[in-house]
Amino acid sequence: MKCGLVAADGAVVHRETRPTPRDAGGRAVLHALLETVVELEQKASAEGHRVRAVGVVVPGIIDAETGTVGAENLAWVGTPVLAELRAAVGPDQQVILAHDVRAGGYAEFRQGALRGTTNSLFLPLGTGIAAAMVVDGSLVSGDGYAGELGHTRFVHGDDAELCACGQRGCLETVASAAALARRYGVRSGKSVDGAREVLELLAAGDPDAKAVWDEALAVLVDALVLYTTLVAPTRIAIGGGLVGAGETLLAPLREGVHARLTFQREPEIVAAVLGEEAGCLGAALMAWDLVSGEQ
Amino acid sequence: MKCGLVAADGAVVHRETRPTPRDAGGRAVLHALLETVVELEQKASAEGHRVRAVGVVVPGIIDAETGTVGAENLAWVGTPVLAELRAAVGPDQQVILAHDVRAGGYAEFRQGALRGTTNSLFLPLGTGIAAAMVVDGSLVSGDGYAGELGHTRFVHGDDAELCACGQRGCLETVASAAALARRYGVRSGKSVDGAREVLELLAAGDPDAKAVWDEALAVLVDALVLYTTLVAPTRIAIGGGLVGAGETLLAPLREGVHARLTFQREPEIVAAVLGEEAGCLGAALMAWDLVSGEQ
Repeated sequence: MKCGLVAADGAVVHRETRPTPRDAGGRAVLHALLETVVELEQKASAEGHRVRAVGVVVPGIIDAETGTVGAENLAWVGTPVLAELRAAVGPDQQVILAHDVRAGGYAEFRQGALRGTTNSLFLPLGTGIAAAMVVDGSLVSGDGYAGELGHTRFVHGDDAELCACGQRGCLETVASAAALARRYGVRSGKSVDGAREVLELLAAGDPDAKAVWDEALAVLVDALVLYTTLVAPTRIAIGGGLVGAGETLLAPLREGVHARLTFQREPEIVAAVLGEEAGCLGAALMAWDLVSGEQ
Repeated sequence: MKCGLVAADGAVVHRETRPTPRDAGGRAVLHALLETVVELEQKASAEGHRVRAVGVVVPGIIDAETGTVGAENLAWVGTPVLAELRAAVGPDQQVILAHDVRAGGYAEFRQGALRGTTNSLFLPLGTGIAAAMVVDGSLVSGDGYAGELGHTRFVHGDDAELCACGQRGCLETVASAAALARRYGVRSGKSVDGAREVLELLAAGDPDAKAVWDEALAVLVDALVLYTTLVAPTRIAIGGGLVGAGETLLAPLREGVHARLTFQREPEIVAAVLGEEAGCLGAALMAWDLVSGEQ
């Protein structure tokens, strides 16, 4: 859990990282979250700050009506996170619960690579893939359900890989950091320690690394062309661990998208700039929006 | 050209249809449009009405910044439609220029099948296919570029058909009314008079009609699953000529989408209700929004 105390001007005045006790089950994760919130408030008080609002972002699907969360990685199934958070904070504090990728996208939109856009996309390529969409000047919520580009089908045929979501051929099964490492292992018979090692092998000319990388690039180009056709972003910011590959990733994406578009408006494709801080910062920016009545 | 005079409460007080002189070129089409606007104003005046605003919708891509339009079917290439319209109307009249499918979607959203939704989709299946997206309570514009679901790839492999847009395997090449008729002709060697005849042959048990229909249903299910995953609509209204097929179209779409979704929120799939009037009515509703300052 990445946590922070963020001032009204967006400055991070304190940051810390805590373990997520997911192996102990969903109750334990929720307890750890509530404990963190309370302790950060105490820390703020002790340093002379007053906490006005609490922003919590999670990797899962938030039902906007009920404030419950489903998140496989946190062992949460219909867990009443918003109600528990409200009970845990002071009566004069506002609380917002949001999707981690949407929050990261919001931070990029407000203070990062998507600043100044009205139609844009934040696409972090990490363990999984989700997207945050800016449409007509606002971050899209879709009642908490929008942006699951990672679970859109881009591999076809009956032998397409089964995704954790239950569908086949999802973008995430080929183009996430986790997929790259897994697919390299399957193809080469050699196990690797994550996508970073696949990128090192790619740089060293390993043909299996090149094959899985090229497959990832191909489906990413498909996904960006699709998104551009449907939603017409002017800028796409790629984030997550894979963007550490820099131009090795971005240049072929730009070339591939440029070659495929016909009538569509061509988006800039750039690297996200806020890195791992994006979600935490976005949570705080959303919380401040609540205070200022902007959201 | 479908034209009308519409009162502030959405009632259509006059309607008429005029030819589009597309064979005479883009200048002639623009001239016919401006003439229509002026003559409708005169008609309104003669009947004691005052025209407050003019809404014009076109099947093409409108550059929101410049007010120019590109529309193959109207022989328009970067044609300055908004400027010409503004010059043609009275100084106290407001003018809005919009995409015909988005306008139709807006009419369905305000007064038709999508009324009361905050996330929904209007998908008319006619000669071509475009979509109007309602996201977080607003009709999406994307600076005039959004909604081109018909030009998203759903047929894969190098032999996928070339679309008029220059891409291959677009939804429109298989699932539009025009595509059904064309593909039936290619497959059976018999020419038909439009999709309506293919639907009659389907009802009569013609195997070629069944084959092209099933192919259309399969890509439509793909498209609806994709849209649902990315944008999370609660309702999808199918319009255009093909929705005349009724449950022959809607029932297999519902079954196909239901069978494919795993974690996503399942949308209702219904028929649009405003028919061919939707675009014209939507143009008027958008024009009235200008007057009331809502848009």
